[in-house]
Amino acid sequence: MVKIVDHDERRRAIAGAAIALIADVGIEHATLRPIAEKAGVTTGAIAHYFKDKDAVLEAALQMVGARLFALSTNGAEGSKGRPLKYVDILPTNDVSRMAWKVWLAFCGHASYSVRLREIYKRFYTDIETAVAAELKITDRARARDVAATIIAAVDGVGLCATVLPDMWPPERQVARLTELLKPIFSSAETSPK
Amino acid sequence: MVKIVDHDERRRAIAGAAIALIADVGIEHATLRPIAEKAGVTTGAIAHYFKDKDAVLEAALQMVGARLFALSTNGAEGSKGRPLKYVDILPTNDVSRMAWKVWLAFCGHASYSVRLREIYKRFYTDIETAVAAELKITDRARARDVAATIIAAVDGVGLCATVLPDMWPPERQVARLTELLKPIFSSAETSPK
Repeated sequence: MVKIVDHDERRRAIAGAAIALIADVGIEHATLRPIAEKAGVTTGAIAHYFKDKDAVLEAALQMVGARLFALSTNGAEGSKGRPLKYVDILPTNDVSRMAWKVWLAFCGHASYSVRLREIYKRFYTDIETAVAAELKITDRARARDVAATIIAAVDGVGLCATVLPDMWPPERQVARLTELLKPIFSSAETSPK
Repeated sequence: MVKIVDHDERRRAIAGAAIALIADVGIEHATLRPIAEKAGVTTGAIAHYFKDKDAVLEAALQMVGARLFALSTNGAEGSKGRPLKYVDILPTNDVSRMAWKVWLAFCGHASYSVRLREIYKRFYTDIETAVAAELKITDRARARDVAATIIAAVDGVGLCATVLPDMWPPERQVARLTELLKPIFSSAETSPK
């Protein structure tokens, strides 16, 4: 039992090091040696926990996606009183900004890697399912579509704000996303079950 | 006069080669030598037309951005009868898909490059101004904000569809973007001048 916990912790530490490295220098420079250095382990140790570099990137993508998604499901600080909890995912502070930067680096690379695209697809499917399940819409196909609309809105504002932080300060991010999502939620809640 | 035209054409050919190369192998592999090979010129010739590699990337980013934006302003084929012309920008065919792929690669890299971010910012500012000018809103600050909302919606759907083309087929892209933009345009058109 203790060994399993250690194993998971070590995997998380390595994935976390990969995220920090990608945020610093970009995904193409996040190779095994600097990831190992950042995690304080040997490359041999990484090989023990992960099949290859892609497996490390997979764990990093899942961790950064889970972090972003947790910001909405757990309700981050300051979310009280906001009409739409999805604004909590936006890159409005240093922690979420780093997560978005890494997330966007993955998006930019997914077009070039079948493996990365598969990882991304599994993750996206989970998110779409989770967002759909929270909607008051019983038609499942319709709920999936509305979930996709919500995800696109969050991604769009997050993309603009990550690339152009000074043109998209936090207040503008929240206002623009609210402008996009309010009509969606209004109509979703009043739509026939 | 003839020389000026040739100069511009040569610059465009080199920028076009950079775009094709980025689409093929990714932005980090789009270095001067393969760009020159793809354009059928020497690296010395590139040096004659561009100060450095960043200047080539700048021209490529501007070209790909202009191509995407032209899809909405010129009105691509099939746009007739559609309620919102911005759907024409979406990655619904091979040409626009390639442009989005390259655009997204730039977005993923802009966080790591001050220079790329400055280029991106100039381009984004032009787009926001152009979109704002087309809205029936006389309050300029409000028009800029609504334009930002529209751009975020297009970017979000385009991002999802570029990374996950099989989960975001053209019909879904159009439906999701329409769902996001219809309320924006309805309220923009009825809002007090």
